[in-house]
Amino acid sequence: YTIAALPGDGIGPEIMESGLTLLETLGKKFQHEFNVTVYPFGGAGIDETGDPIPPQTIKGCSEADAILLAAIGGPKWEKAEKTPEDGLLQLRKTLGLFSNIRPIAVSDSIAHLSPLKTERVKGTDFIVVRELTGGLYFGQPKHWNDEEATDTLFYKKSEIDRIVRQAFDIAMTRGKKLTSVDKANVLASSKLWRKTVNEIATEYPEVTVDHLYVDAASMKIIQDPTSFDVIVTENMFGDILSDEASVITGSLGMLPSGSHAVSGPSLYEPIHGSAPDIAGKNIANPMSMILSVAMMLRQSFQLHEEAAALEKAASEVMDAGFLTADLGGTTTTTAFTEQVKAILE
Amino acid sequence: YTIAALPGDGIGPEIMESGLTLLETLGKKFQHEFNVTVYPFGGAGIDETGDPIPPQTIKGCSEADAILLAAIGGPKWEKAEKTPEDGLLQLRKTLGLFSNIRPIAVSDSIAHLSPLKTERVKGTDFIVVRELTGGLYFGQPKHWNDEEATDTLFYKKSEIDRIVRQAFDIAMTRGKKLTSVDKANVLASSKLWRKTVNEIATEYPEVTVDHLYVDAASMKIIQDPTSFDVIVTENMFGDILSDEASVITGSLGMLPSGSHAVSGPSLYEPIHGSAPDIAGKNIANPMSMILSVAMMLRQSFQLHEEAAALEKAASEVMDAGFLTADLGGTTTTTAFTEQVKAILE
Ligand SMILES: CC(C)[C@H](C(=O)O)[C@@H](O)C(=O)O
Ligand SMILES: CC(C)[C@H](C(=O)O)[C@@H](O)C(=O)O
Repeated sequence: YTIAALPGDGIGPEIMESGLTLLETLGKKFQHEFNVTVYPFGGAGIDETGDPIPPQTIKGCSEADAILLAAIGGPKWEKAEKTPEDGLLQLRKTLGLFSNIRPIAVSDSIAHLSPLKTERVKGTDFIVVRELTGGLYFGQPKHWNDEEATDTLFYKKSEIDRIVRQAFDIAMTRGKKLTSVDKANVLASSKLWRKTVNEIATEYPEVTVDHLYVDAASMKIIQDPTSFDVIVTENMFGDILSDEASVITGSLGMLPSGSHAVSGPSLYEPIHGSAPDIAGKNIANPMSMILSVAMMLRQSFQLHEEAAALEKAASEVMDAGFLTADLGGTTTTTAFTEQVKAILE
Repeated sequence: YTIAALPGDGIGPEIMESGLTLLETLGKKFQHEFNVTVYPFGGAGIDETGDPIPPQTIKGCSEADAILLAAIGGPKWEKAEKTPEDGLLQLRKTLGLFSNIRPIAVSDSIAHLSPLKTERVKGTDFIVVRELTGGLYFGQPKHWNDEEATDTLFYKKSEIDRIVRQAFDIAMTRGKKLTSVDKANVLASSKLWRKTVNEIATEYPEVTVDHLYVDAASMKIIQDPTSFDVIVTENMFGDILSDEASVITGSLGMLPSGSHAVSGPSLYEPIHGSAPDIAGKNIANPMSMILSVAMMLRQSFQLHEEAAALEKAASEVMDAGFLTADLGGTTTTTAFTEQVKAILE
């Protein structure tokens, strides 16, 4: 298994270290060879090579079986000609990572951490399927000067089709309920989006489909989070709504995500950012990275037993009261990792 | 005082009735003449004339001193060639209503109604200033066919300038803190937006300015709502974030908003929609409409005493336990209105 690891910036290197340590432990225990190569990316890429996504990083990622990304960005590179974020967008586009999958779940034991009233959020369990290589992020023309600015929200039907099918397929493995989010009362692209969803729906008669306007969806995620099963939406709306959804769990430091292409490697990464304010202090919660590793093992390598062992060990450590600062504890990143490692060994 | 009233659809006519009844009561009490003319608009406009915004409605609104709008839209008109929403967008554009102001406040006495944990939301008091006549809503090209779709997010610097100045002016009357929301790490329009905010900031040295990406803003509204004073953002982000913000109050049925032009009449309306599911049942909460009337009295007519009397009477009725169904009570729309009227008289 060839893996490209992109530690990136801020707390990125610290949590990546945790994820890779445990991957190595799993490799020994289950006798797999994980060939991990670390590549410069994001701000680290700029510092090392002047480019947030240098050629060797693109090549290494393209040839890998899977990619692990920790986090990128920070004030240091905000004014760079090509920012860490530009690098991330280029990576997504180059690898064709059109589908970003973010599970949002609130188990009873962590519901009290949620900013929402506990009873309202308890039992929340849904997946946000976000289109990742189209829409406002990439549409042309896209330019600005001192007088005016233009971005373009462009979608081909085929781009909508493939992400929506992916969402239906996921819904079929779960509660068979799909919520498509658009702004079809205002946007032309949303009219095509809605029409496409309705067409594909006829091929999935078992799936209950409803449509929500993005403003209504932003309300319902707070008011009635347990009502969702699978949400599918375009790139910009998905950015906003998946981040909104992530905070209702109260445990942003524990959420992994996966991004997939039609073919080629998938990319796994925490939902949260690089948190420059707590970088280098050995206090970041590595759970999101650990769970991203588990997601990779399961989805890219079909190593279900290994993924389950890792998840179980990590949750045992948490249940034993070893919590990082974000969850109100005092356990360090490395101490948490060592605890999980000890259980795995 | 000439007022154009647009009852619209769903619960619109019921809550408009409430607002107009109390306006009339105030007129008698304080000896003002409010000349109210009701115009067909939205679905009601389509039903009556085939057009959601017939010529007489445009004319009546343009010539009025202020406009009261209740709510529009519903499944019945979703497939209309020109929808109620199209009519609303045309009204905003025709009257140049570029600035939409939505106060979000959670008093201690209603904090328990919030979906957020009470302690977290208590004390929330901020204003969302949304740009209303630019961006993705109106940019050209905007079209779709069976193969592809395009929307355009276009802003002139002058459009950004005037809404941002408005937000700074509002911040100066309050906590002197402005949060500008954009997606400057991805969008060209956001880069111009951020630059413009930073330029204007030099003219308001007393105001503390910070910038948030829209995804981070959608998180912070839930995580730390009391940290905001004034939020300013472009049209589409404002649609999503102001609706998100409105539900954390737990009392969506009580929120008014005002939309303003460079010159000409302002428009006042509830934040919520037409709620077709509860229409005609005499159970809608008229508070949002009543508070919209108060906002009009204060902002368009400088009738501060009258506005305060109306707000005070309405809150006395609520404090006395007369609550509509959305707040867990059994008081009808008309009974609530009669109670307020009795106090005013
Ligand atoms: C860093 C930024 C470009 C990115 C995005 O908007 O897609 C991030 O917010 C995300 O959600 O992965
Ligand atoms: C009805 C719709 C077009 C409108 C909007 O998106 O502006 C509404 O959601 C609002 O916020 O006033």
